[in-house]
Amino acid sequence: MLRTHTCGELRSEHIGSTVTLTGWVQKQRDKGGVVWIDLRDRYGITQLIFEEGVTEQSIIDQAKKVGREFVIKATGEVVERYAKNDKMATGDLEIRVNSLEVLNGSKVPPFTIEDETDGGEDLRMKYRYLDIRRNPVREKLQLRHTMMQKVREYLNKEKFVEVETPYLIKSTPEGARDFVVPSRMNENEFYALPQSPQTFKQLLMVAGMDRYFQIVKCFRDEDLRADRQPEFTQIDCEMAFVEQEDVLQTFEGMTKFLYKEMKGIELDDFQRISYDEAMAKYGSDKPDLRFGMEFCELNDKAQGKGFVVFDSAELVVGINAEGCANYTRKQLDGLTDFVKKPQIGAKGLVYVKYNEDGSFKSSVDKFFDQDELKGWAEKFRAKPGDLLLILAGEKNQTRKALNELRLEMGETLGLRDKNKVAAAWVLDFPLLEWDEETKRYHAMHHPFTAPKPEDVEKLNSDPGAVRANAYDMVINGVEAGGGSIRIHDRAMQARMFEVLGFSKEEAEEQFGFLMGAFEYGAPPHGGVAFGFDRLCAIMAGEQSIRDFIAFPKNNAGRDVMIDSPSAISMEQLNELGIKLVEPTKS
Amino acid sequence: MLRTHTCGELRSEHIGSTVTLTGWVQKQRDKGGVVWIDLRDRYGITQLIFEEGVTEQSIIDQAKKVGREFVIKATGEVVERYAKNDKMATGDLEIRVNSLEVLNGSKVPPFTIEDETDGGEDLRMKYRYLDIRRNPVREKLQLRHTMMQKVREYLNKEKFVEVETPYLIKSTPEGARDFVVPSRMNENEFYALPQSPQTFKQLLMVAGMDRYFQIVKCFRDEDLRADRQPEFTQIDCEMAFVEQEDVLQTFEGMTKFLYKEMKGIELDDFQRISYDEAMAKYGSDKPDLRFGMEFCELNDKAQGKGFVVFDSAELVVGINAEGCANYTRKQLDGLTDFVKKPQIGAKGLVYVKYNEDGSFKSSVDKFFDQDELKGWAEKFRAKPGDLLLILAGEKNQTRKALNELRLEMGETLGLRDKNKVAAAWVLDFPLLEWDEETKRYHAMHHPFTAPKPEDVEKLNSDPGAVRANAYDMVINGVEAGGGSIRIHDRAMQARMFEVLGFSKEEAEEQFGFLMGAFEYGAPPHGGVAFGFDRLCAIMAGEQSIRDFIAFPKNNAGRDVMIDSPSAISMEQLNELGIKLVEPTKS
Repeated sequence: MLRTHTCGELRSEHIGSTVTLTGWVQKQRDKGGVVWIDLRDRYGITQLIFEEGVTEQSIIDQAKKVGREFVIKATGEVVERYAKNDKMATGDLEIRVNSLEVLNGSKVPPFTIEDETDGGEDLRMKYRYLDIRRNPVREKLQLRHTMMQKVREYLNKEKFVEVETPYLIKSTPEGARDFVVPSRMNENEFYALPQSPQTFKQLLMVAGMDRYFQIVKCFRDEDLRADRQPEFTQIDCEMAFVEQEDVLQTFEGMTKFLYKEMKGIELDDFQRISYDEAMAKYGSDKPDLRFGMEFCELNDKAQGKGFVVFDSAELVVGINAEGCANYTRKQLDGLTDFVKKPQIGAKGLVYVKYNEDGSFKSSVDKFFDQDELKGWAEKFRAKPGDLLLILAGEKNQTRKALNELRLEMGETLGLRDKNKVAAAWVLDFPLLEWDEETKRYHAMHHPFTAPKPEDVEKLNSDPGAVRANAYDMVINGVEAGGGSIRIHDRAMQARMFEVLGFSKEEAEEQFGFLMGAFEYGAPPHGGVAFGFDRLCAIMAGEQSIRDFIAFPKNNAGRDVMIDSPSAISMEQLNELGIKLVEPTKS
Repeated sequence: MLRTHTCGELRSEHIGSTVTLTGWVQKQRDKGGVVWIDLRDRYGITQLIFEEGVTEQSIIDQAKKVGREFVIKATGEVVERYAKNDKMATGDLEIRVNSLEVLNGSKVPPFTIEDETDGGEDLRMKYRYLDIRRNPVREKLQLRHTMMQKVREYLNKEKFVEVETPYLIKSTPEGARDFVVPSRMNENEFYALPQSPQTFKQLLMVAGMDRYFQIVKCFRDEDLRADRQPEFTQIDCEMAFVEQEDVLQTFEGMTKFLYKEMKGIELDDFQRISYDEAMAKYGSDKPDLRFGMEFCELNDKAQGKGFVVFDSAELVVGINAEGCANYTRKQLDGLTDFVKKPQIGAKGLVYVKYNEDGSFKSSVDKFFDQDELKGWAEKFRAKPGDLLLILAGEKNQTRKALNELRLEMGETLGLRDKNKVAAAWVLDFPLLEWDEETKRYHAMHHPFTAPKPEDVEKLNSDPGAVRANAYDMVINGVEAGGGSIRIHDRAMQARMFEVLGFSKEEAEEQFGFLMGAFEYGAPPHGGVAFGFDRLCAIMAGEQSIRDFIAFPKNNAGRDVMIDSPSAISMEQLNELGIKLVEPTKS
């Protein structure tokens, strides 16, 4: 090694010994005949000192010339520091350098390599290798590393076998868009990159592997929202001979283990809530359960009194913002503007102030008297000083809007506490959801999810009412993972494809290999997949996943550091047997 | 769980308890009023017994109907077995079943699910999920799993950080052919799948991660030889502030750790041999060092005696096959045929028998007398009873041919002992190799490998003579891994691209991001990559990597199980902005 120690390693007991350190120049000061250099590496920072009359003048001259981010190698004696620095692990000492070598120079970096940087997002992405030198980014990657090792530790203990499934697989039109890979050896044919190893992990169950896991890259060619990536990492797991409860216990156990090991937090047993209840109480299948503010439905009390907005609504539903009766006109207008935003889409907001004196003031006083409003307040279990916020309209749309309002109010009232962890299982998802656009049912989870045995017969009579043994793990309102018990019977799988509008031929061509496998002794099985990038962000209490990915892509799917994707040569295209369609100049 | 225990778990101490097992029917016998079922899962086999007069008749009838590979659930009492079976871990007991449920049936499998199967390669690949049920295949995947965990254990201890690098990167024409991925969002542009994360791991060193590793899929669109796969797994590592010796020590340590943990074998310190020496002594840069049989060059003694084959040869070189002087005419003809095979390409084979009586008999007695042959034998350190086998011709080609003959003789003489491990580092590889076809130098390792400092000036005068700090780990004649100290200086990297025939523009366009990174404080660094599939095969003492891959592709790059690659829809092609070139009917 070019060094004897790292920059985070030296302590008082090293005082008196001679060491060689390597690293990057974090800072260099030159004052009154003394030069100090803060030398940085992944492990910490150590101070180097060069002093006139003590250090050889040529070395001092060298030290004066090094700039920020130069890579240097310094040898010297570890000495006690005059002014100790409690904030640094190495703050008791410094190195009195007697030999200095510049291993590599550096141009002035385009942004400061400090915990707080002056670099904008674009610049930091272009120079990602400099951004990673910053503690907050490096620490996120190290957290990710530790998480990976801990996930493996737990799953190994539980007898899961890590199996790598292929990346060059087959394109299937179900689900999101595939990235495809032209095959040179198989003319006019394409591989696809996996959106998940779903069918392979099921085949591993048929193969008798019993418990499988993988931490694996998955790919979706979708239009990217702010916090989506075309390639992302999944903790992918599957178990044979299990029922839903076994999967829940196993992965609730994993999550508790991770919180304990990573954060020293002992999580309570997870709350469990059905999809229907989650939608009715929170308007979301991933409710933030760090706070209550449950929905209260008001149709029985609010309809038939002549207020047409309520009378024509499928659902009248509200929340109780505790202690907000003193909201000003302006604040209430702000909330109305919030719910009327196009992405939220409510037509308006009704409020009822439950004043401290016991009286009510609402935006619908014209239609409802004090007694009626008091009846509402009772239903909301509101107290004097509370504020009821009520929306009305089509059921699903209204719930969705009220969910946004609930989260907004939770945020405003400081109820979404970063230091609190509310983990839950959302259960009993519908098997299918109706798509108005294509006028057919889609699989809510995926086409391999088993219907609940007691609901199977509704597949004919009322497909939308069939529930699945499907479950999501939700932490602080974020979906950390999800899974289901799978179909393991050929006839049921074929029936499922039929319900989803596949012709027999399509089903056979795309998933014949899986249905074929089900004929040779497929065990009952189920599993789960966690979004690993997101799980890291959740664990760190962060919103964005991007900094937990070493080299993320931007919202256009581009890697701006390496400038990819890029044009390829005509020779490559010819070998692959493909041509570009001339881009339309639009 | 549907079971209380696995099929490998029960022991005498469980006798008397009631258990529920699940698994696959390995075998069912029905004899004299008793039915036995061998029930199998990943963990082992347990015998079930159904006996007339003891077991309920309806359950016996059920048991009679189950076929091979049915998935069943059986509950019953653990009882002592009358005829114990020492070969099975559960051989002391059996389950007297009182409840039986068929969880899934099975068609008759297309081949027997036994250690030795009657299934051919093609059939086993098509039904890979059945093949994996066989112990030898499952055990290989489990060995791979354990290797992965042990590799991580070692590298974690050595402070390596596991970082995931992107799969959607940029196509560069250097090296093998890239698989490319059309981008829908970036019209007419393509990503490429990584042939290795080489540039990213170097950027992580520039980023200060200090020690990086990843067990990662890599992709090469090459014509596939028998034991190559278009996607393969690499243990990829990089270290900053190191010299070659540090990398060698670290990964020799890892390999010793793996052998100790996986096989209980304490490896000796690895032999070290330079590339030049390996080529001169064994005709290969991956010599099998389990046995000697070193090359002996004979130009000084064999030339100038009128034998035109020798006189016109650049190199006359042979090996000593100890104890083979009694080879028959037929055996010697067989060896001559062997070296004359087109893929070996020697013109002929000269032999010298050193008879037990001290006399010599050779195929060149016409040109060399007994004294001359005795001089040869001395040079070979041969004893009476030995056989010298000699080739002559162009140097590299002759060495290559003699390498094949040496391996063949080693095999024949039983010197390539499966239970012996000979591990070595081959050092000092040439930086460049001349390619006759393109009339230019190629990077022997890759364009990021640093020339040895003392050889740098030969880059102008004699590029072919420049050696690199590049190294391969060779175990029993197989390349397990390789790596190098890298260039970390922009000017040197630019010079390297120039030597490789890149224009300034090409170098900048393809690798500008890396050269740019070198301007911002790149530390000295180096690393290594292991072929993980191969390392697993080496560890198991197997030749083929295919069974160490859960779902391998065939020699045409096809996955015959899922039938991939396959055609994609016109809609997909349109979205991607590509067209197929009509295949030429040839």
